[in-house]
Amino acid sequence: MEAKFGFIPSGSVTSPEGFRAGATDAGIKKGKGLDLGLLASEVPCSAVGLFTTNRIKAAPVVLCQQRLRTGRAAAVVVNSGCANACTGEQGLADAAEMASLAAGVIGVAPEDVLVASTGVIGHQLPMERLRNGLRQIALSRDGGHELARAMMTTDTVPKEAAVKSDEDGFIIGGVAKGAGMIHPDLATFLCFLTTDANVGLDFLKFALRQAADVSFNMVSIDGDTSTNDTVLLMANGLAGDDKPITPGSRQGEVFQQALNQLCIHLARAMARDGEGATKLVEVTVNGAPDVAAAKLAARTVVSSSLVKTAIYGSDPNWGRIVAAVGRSGVEVIEAKIDLYLGNLCLLKAGRPQPFAREEAVKILSGSEVAIVLQLNLGNATATAWGCDLSEEYVTSNSQYTS
Amino acid sequence: MEAKFGFIPSGSVTSPEGFRAGATDAGIKKGKGLDLGLLASEVPCSAVGLFTTNRIKAAPVVLCQQRLRTGRAAAVVVNSGCANACTGEQGLADAAEMASLAAGVIGVAPEDVLVASTGVIGHQLPMERLRNGLRQIALSRDGGHELARAMMTTDTVPKEAAVKSDEDGFIIGGVAKGAGMIHPDLATFLCFLTTDANVGLDFLKFALRQAADVSFNMVSIDGDTSTNDTVLLMANGLAGDDKPITPGSRQGEVFQQALNQLCIHLARAMARDGEGATKLVEVTVNGAPDVAAAKLAARTVVSSSLVKTAIYGSDPNWGRIVAAVGRSGVEVIEAKIDLYLGNLCLLKAGRPQPFAREEAVKILSGSEVAIVLQLNLGNATATAWGCDLSEEYVTSNSQYTS
Repeated sequence: MEAKFGFIPSGSVTSPEGFRAGATDAGIKKGKGLDLGLLASEVPCSAVGLFTTNRIKAAPVVLCQQRLRTGRAAAVVVNSGCANACTGEQGLADAAEMASLAAGVIGVAPEDVLVASTGVIGHQLPMERLRNGLRQIALSRDGGHELARAMMTTDTVPKEAAVKSDEDGFIIGGVAKGAGMIHPDLATFLCFLTTDANVGLDFLKFALRQAADVSFNMVSIDGDTSTNDTVLLMANGLAGDDKPITPGSRQGEVFQQALNQLCIHLARAMARDGEGATKLVEVTVNGAPDVAAAKLAARTVVSSSLVKTAIYGSDPNWGRIVAAVGRSGVEVIEAKIDLYLGNLCLLKAGRPQPFAREEAVKILSGSEVAIVLQLNLGNATATAWGCDLSEEYVTSNSQYTS
Repeated sequence: MEAKFGFIPSGSVTSPEGFRAGATDAGIKKGKGLDLGLLASEVPCSAVGLFTTNRIKAAPVVLCQQRLRTGRAAAVVVNSGCANACTGEQGLADAAEMASLAAGVIGVAPEDVLVASTGVIGHQLPMERLRNGLRQIALSRDGGHELARAMMTTDTVPKEAAVKSDEDGFIIGGVAKGAGMIHPDLATFLCFLTTDANVGLDFLKFALRQAADVSFNMVSIDGDTSTNDTVLLMANGLAGDDKPITPGSRQGEVFQQALNQLCIHLARAMARDGEGATKLVEVTVNGAPDVAAAKLAARTVVSSSLVKTAIYGSDPNWGRIVAAVGRSGVEVIEAKIDLYLGNLCLLKAGRPQPFAREEAVKILSGSEVAIVLQLNLGNATATAWGCDLSEEYVTSNSQYTS
């Protein structure tokens, strides 16, 4: 399908009509900087979410899952610096109070406010700082950028974007955070998506799952799945017709594609900003017997510590890629595998190909490294994103709470 | 059961009666040092093996699997510096020739010789060096120590041991190599076990599987499963009675326990020598609903990059341990979990316990770090071994073929 949408320059989660945001430095996060944010819609939204599959779920995750049973939300309050995970009954009470305080600031019902937290596990939220902080937040149409920074922990750059369909007149905005404890499992990290499109709850749910499956679920930074992973999608309908966008329609198709591309953009931004990362790694598996196999193979290669360290060192140690796909659980036949590094063929039908080492090193030295595996077993394809593994990942993660 | 066996000082794979070994520097391995070894029994052995579950299997693995259908072997030839993996038809031919050359040196039938290789994937064996090297090897009763060194790649120390049952008069010896591309999956790394006990093929197979399940299959260094993993167990019967040891008998129980302890000893030695490792990490999960769940939970925690980096930095960031067990796939209930670091309780029934940070740091600063999780869901228990993750792991693995 021809693209019927485009990215908005400096787009953010408040680019869609009727969304406002703001943030403050409440003193929750170690060091300085914004650490408490609010995102609100002028009118109630249809809202859906995807959450961590970790059996240890942070209090805000439990609260969001309860509240989204209504399919409705008007705002999200988020803090960084403390995950409010492994915090027992007190944690649940704190998450609920955090929502109520935000509801008071915005002037909506407490049950219409969702909550997200990110940071160290096992510490109670500093509620007094949170109470004071929330009173200082001013919401604005341009506040998405502040919100993006307030969500950051080990992230070095904010991740935000928005796509617009001129023909259909809607915008989808998004903000995400995440650089560590990131491994694809239904939903990863924190991500808030907003749209002014008029989309019913069922299609919204379906569209978010579809988009997450080709984006967030295809990212791995370090193989660890967080207790706090949350993706929220809120649609307020302010830009749409009175008639909701339906799945299968032309408009529905544009909405789905626009949402997919926005999520892929944010997923790639997270992989590129992985803790200690110096390169974005993109692994595409073609010719798999089915999509599940293609995804599993691509995710396994992009998650391999040995593949990641070799890419970090620009070392064309391609055997590690083949070894990773071999242990992925996917039925592969060695004598059928082709392997490409960028456009350079390293393996053809299972036979090592002579290649110029300097050329391989040059490809591996780029800021984006593309690996393509052709399994020659079928027609399914999938792409996964990750990053290289550097000494800096180890150094920073060995001193996280110190 | 009371221990009926003990470790032999300076024991090796040639400690059991009738085994000899030797090694040479054939110039296969980058840098200097022994890289080609031979292990032989005076008389034909009952022999069984466990091999990588990686679908990409190195040529020597394919050859061993074929040859062990007879349940018989007399010798093993092994090289380091080249894995002979992803080497196609030529690789298979080279592995067979390697066995034939060794058979000529020892004076046995080629089909009674097993083969193992370890090193870089995707390179053909340097057959001329191998031919010359094999002619230089002299076998001796004390040659196990040389063999252990000839198998090393990134290993910093040889791994070998032997256990002896005085009452039953048998010895089991073992040698192993492995420091990277190590993740539990039926069999890991290279390990040769020898015994002079008289054990039939069926019990030998059963005993090896039992021992591997509580030792090698409970080790993870970096989550990558090799293409070359091979564990071989050869029994020549020279020390035993004419009557074979049977499973279920007192002797059979002693043999199984002795084999288990030998394999656990070698597994721990590998974890301690993990690439870049500064500490041995032992994770015990108690109170699991079944053994499979206990193993999965223990293996997931010991494999977590975030747990490993925190231990490296002696940072008591215990939330990562709970997050890892939560994503393991095991049904856990947060409000039931107890967590101990050494003897220090960090979490009791899901509630964070106040603890002295200095005490936790002191425990984490030791050369062995013990983590105990009590799930309080059942009676099953399992222990896994691994190591911390240091900058040195990244540095060395980013330049492996450079």
